[in-house]
Amino acid sequence: VKPYCDYGLTLVTDRELCLGRSLTEVVDAAVRGGTGIVQLREKSCDSRQFYELAKALRELLRPRAIPLIINDRADIALAVEAEGLHIGQSDLPLRAAREIMGPNAIIGLSVESEADVRAAEAVAIDYFGLSPVFSTPTKTDTNTPLGLAGVGRIRPLTPLPLVAIGGISAANAAEVLAAGADGVAVVSAICSAPDPEQAARSLKKTIDQVRNRRY
Amino acid sequence: VKPYCDYGLTLVTDRELCLGRSLTEVVDAAVRGGTGIVQLREKSCDSRQFYELAKALRELLRPRAIPLIINDRADIALAVEAEGLHIGQSDLPLRAAREIMGPNAIIGLSVESEADVRAAEAVAIDYFGLSPVFSTPTKTDTNTPLGLAGVGRIRPLTPLPLVAIGGISAANAAEVLAAGADGVAVVSAICSAPDPEQAARSLKKTIDQVRNRRY
Repeated sequence: VKPYCDYGLTLVTDRELCLGRSLTEVVDAAVRGGTGIVQLREKSCDSRQFYELAKALRELLRPRAIPLIINDRADIALAVEAEGLHIGQSDLPLRAAREIMGPNAIIGLSVESEADVRAAEAVAIDYFGLSPVFSTPTKTDTNTPLGLAGVGRIRPLTPLPLVAIGGISAANAAEVLAAGADGVAVVSAICSAPDPEQAARSLKKTIDQVRNRRY
Repeated sequence: VKPYCDYGLTLVTDRELCLGRSLTEVVDAAVRGGTGIVQLREKSCDSRQFYELAKALRELLRPRAIPLIINDRADIALAVEAEGLHIGQSDLPLRAAREIMGPNAIIGLSVESEADVRAAEAVAIDYFGLSPVFSTPTKTDTNTPLGLAGVGRIRPLTPLPLVAIGGISAANAAEVLAAGADGVAVVSAICSAPDPEQAARSLKKTIDQVRNRRY
C-alpha cells in the first residue's frame, strides 16, 4: 500500500542554506514543528554523499512515519527504501520513474504550467509540485512564477494534491492554499530560519487554520 | 543469466571529446571496429538527457549483443534495461548497487589501489576497472597512476577480470595486458580519433595478438 502523506507542509532540503547547522538537526527540528513530508534535494554532491544523507534522513524519519521523498535520483530512493521520488521536467520520464519505483512509491512531478499538468495526466503520479509560485533565489532553473492566479488555473485541471513551492513563508502560505493548493513546500523558510522548529510550527498553524475553514 | 562480456576493449564515452560528431556515430564506428563493451559516462547533463543518450545507445547496441554499461546512475541503467552498471569509489555503495540492479547485472567497480580491491572482495562484482593506469587528461578526480607495476601488484589479488583505463592507446595496450590486465578501456583513443572505427580495430588487433600469445 501507499504510505500515508500529509501534504500540508513539506520541507525541501538545501544543506547550503542551513546556516552551518547539520541537515539532520534542521530536519529533526522541522519535523518536531509539524513538517509532514521531507524531500531530500541535493544537487551539489556525489552519489555516495547523496546516499549517506538519504540514509541518515531515512533513519531519522522512519520511526516518526514521516515520508522521505528523494529528488531526481530513483536509485538513491531505492537504495535507502525511501517512500517516494520527486522528479522535474528534466529528470527521468515519469513512466520510467514509476516502473523503477514500483506501484506503491509516492511520485511527485514538478509542473510549471497548465500544459505540464495536462501532459502528465495519463501516467500514475501522486501529487504535483507547482513551481515556482513566487519568485525565489533558491531555484534558478525555473520559469516565470505562476502566482496565485496560476495556482487557481491549475486547480480545476486535476484531482491530485497540489503542493506549491517557491517564495512561500508563513506570511503568504494562507493565500496560496486559498488559491487552490493542498499544501506548501519550503526551503529557506525553514532551513534558514533562526529557529527551524518554530518556523515549521508557524507555517503548520497557518495551514491548519485554512484547512479548518475549508472543511 | 549474466550477459556475455568480452572485456578485451571497452569504449567509455565522453561526448565532449567526439570532435563534433554525435555519440551514436562514434559508438557505432567503435563497435564496427571491435569494441566489445560500451560504458556510457556522461557527467555534465541532466537526468533526462542522460536517459535519452542511454536509450539511444541501448537501441544501437542490443541487436549486436554488445553490453551497455551505465556509469554511476543505477536508475538510468534500470530505466533503459542496460546490461550493467559501473561505479566508482564515490558512487553508490557496491552492496546497494547490487541490490538495486539484481543478480544478473554486470557490475564493475573502479579501483585505484590494492586496498580498494581488498575492500571490495566480499561483495559480488563482475570486474574491476583499474584507474588510472597512466596519467590522462580526461579524468581529473583520480589518484596517482598505477603504472604497469600497479597492474602487476593487483593481478594476483583477484580472479575477476581487470579492465585497465587511463592513457591507453594502441601504442601501449600490449604492455598493459602483459602486465596482467584482461582488457583495456579507452575514451579519447577512440572518441577523439580521426577514424574511430580504425582506432578501435587497431586496439582490438593488438589485444587479440596478446591474447593469442597467452592462450
